[in-house]
Amino acid sequence: MDYKIALIGCGNVGEGFLQILHEKASWLKSQHDFEAKIVAICDKLKGNLIVPEGLELGKLLHLLNQRQRIDDYDPAQKKRFVDPLDMIESVDANIICELTPTDIKTAEPATSYIRKALRCGKHVVTSNKGPAALYYHELIKLAKQNHVFFRVEGTVMSGTPVFSLFEYGLSGNTVNSLRGILNGTTNFILSAMEEKDLSYEEALVEAQKLGYAETDPTADVEGFDAMAKLMILSNVIFDHPLRIEDIERKGIVTIKREDIKEALSQNRRLKLIAEINNQDGQIKARVFPQSLPLTDPLARVMGANNALVFELDPLGQVFIQGPGAGKKETGYAILNDILYIHKNLINQKNQ
Amino acid sequence: MDYKIALIGCGNVGEGFLQILHEKASWLKSQHDFEAKIVAICDKLKGNLIVPEGLELGKLLHLLNQRQRIDDYDPAQKKRFVDPLDMIESVDANIICELTPTDIKTAEPATSYIRKALRCGKHVVTSNKGPAALYYHELIKLAKQNHVFFRVEGTVMSGTPVFSLFEYGLSGNTVNSLRGILNGTTNFILSAMEEKDLSYEEALVEAQKLGYAETDPTADVEGFDAMAKLMILSNVIFDHPLRIEDIERKGIVTIKREDIKEALSQNRRLKLIAEINNQDGQIKARVFPQSLPLTDPLARVMGANNALVFELDPLGQVFIQGPGAGKKETGYAILNDILYIHKNLINQKNQ
Repeated sequence: MDYKIALIGCGNVGEGFLQILHEKASWLKSQHDFEAKIVAICDKLKGNLIVPEGLELGKLLHLLNQRQRIDDYDPAQKKRFVDPLDMIESVDANIICELTPTDIKTAEPATSYIRKALRCGKHVVTSNKGPAALYYHELIKLAKQNHVFFRVEGTVMSGTPVFSLFEYGLSGNTVNSLRGILNGTTNFILSAMEEKDLSYEEALVEAQKLGYAETDPTADVEGFDAMAKLMILSNVIFDHPLRIEDIERKGIVTIKREDIKEALSQNRRLKLIAEINNQDGQIKARVFPQSLPLTDPLARVMGANNALVFELDPLGQVFIQGPGAGKKETGYAILNDILYIHKNLINQKNQ
Repeated sequence: MDYKIALIGCGNVGEGFLQILHEKASWLKSQHDFEAKIVAICDKLKGNLIVPEGLELGKLLHLLNQRQRIDDYDPAQKKRFVDPLDMIESVDANIICELTPTDIKTAEPATSYIRKALRCGKHVVTSNKGPAALYYHELIKLAKQNHVFFRVEGTVMSGTPVFSLFEYGLSGNTVNSLRGILNGTTNFILSAMEEKDLSYEEALVEAQKLGYAETDPTADVEGFDAMAKLMILSNVIFDHPLRIEDIERKGIVTIKREDIKEALSQNRRLKLIAEINNQDGQIKARVFPQSLPLTDPLARVMGANNALVFELDPLGQVFIQGPGAGKKETGYAILNDILYIHKNLINQKNQ
């Protein structure tokens, strides 16, 4: 089967995805009987491009590497205005990848884009936390009504499978709790404070230098990013929407080098833990720094890695750890969701 | 949707599965729109039972708890001979759970049962390592020809998802290597030798007392069980059949208390590691005791737990840990495979 894909937003995640698609094209064909064309890209900063016959990925990736604009690919389309909503409606594509940056307060313009795509009968894959945190139930319902898929694997733990793991591997369990390290930036900072004996401020500067933290690090260090991820986990896994005001939240900005040393002297380690507890259907969620014994699997997760512990009935404890951020890692999540759709469509055909 | 299920073999795994099905019946109905009847059970030792309208699970589980025979459920069927092959063919069931004990040399009679079921257009779920290790490719092809599923989640890491994790979460990667702790018995013995300062022989006796090791522990302690699991992983994940003679194998019987202490003094821990390396399509597999640095996630896996590290391109390292044995845990794997089939059938209907 072959697919026509349009990208809304082409920052790090989009580039990572296109790079994988380019490098793995023949492998995907032979291994998964999967072929895809990129037929359109809309990016607010880098320009727009519509290529109905499918664009040459090598040529586009070269431009992006040189930090040129996307519409340099085809001078005729240079700086032409394209309304993403119109493009989503009119483009001849069956999958829309919504990869614009997260706005956790409004979830816009992403949610409008996704609604439009689903209503037009196009599958949607997103790495944007806003729509998945605030409008998941509406969007998944809309997807079902239109007989298409709405997939959000890249919103939590980047390409490390959480939602596909749960759906196909764990959903025969009731989930008593989820506890995780869901923000790579803060875990990197806490790891650097310990391993390099740095203050919080010094470790933050190092994280910023390496591209792990943004110039304004608030979303990460105050726990907002982990909070949004808990909202998504609660939507998908507990089928229970959480409001921002339902979630206790404390970040890592007040943690001192001494706190870390004191914990270690007691064989413990400070981690920013995001957790959801299900007490007989009462869902409680919080993000807060916790001093974990070193025997806790989450205490061993260092650097920009993420991890999640499921407490399940009847299966017991299941722990998964993997990359939590990165261009290729999150780009992989987009590919994985598209392959998920592909597998489901193939299964339908074969039965 | 509702299903009619027949069990071939009703030992620990079968009982665990029936118990979960009984306890979770109304939850499965409300959560997954899933209903199942058990319409037949064949067990070589405990007797046979055919109940076309579906048997009362509470009544049967009570008998099994009292160590009574299965056919005590219905005195009219007492000690009546039933050929499992005839039953598989004639029973009005759409799913056959093949739960007889593993014979790693012949994979029989399980493989004959599975072939028969697939040819009759019945889905098959198994926890038996023999057919999955020796005849996976033949059986999966047969399943496809007959438009049914053949699922083997319970054969590796009990209910901890490996194959569904890979299929829906990781299969967009090339797998450079797999390294795991796949045998709970040997990991329990090595953990007990360290934690309780026991000799190998003493720890083995303890494992036998607790039901983790069998009277003849050869299959576990000599690495045959882990070897069979590598064969299954290679079949499913690398699409590459391995012969027994292709796999280097060394068990744990020669490990001394002193070896464990010496490793620990160097911040290392001895573990029985099962691994597959993929060097440009050349697949090499081995089972052997390895001294791991404590920073290796596998070094932290204690007791009867199992774990697996995937080295993936492009995603990087993904680690999963969970139960590796147990009645309910492996029983869960059977339920999970049935729900996998159910989800796929529902997706087909909805699209």
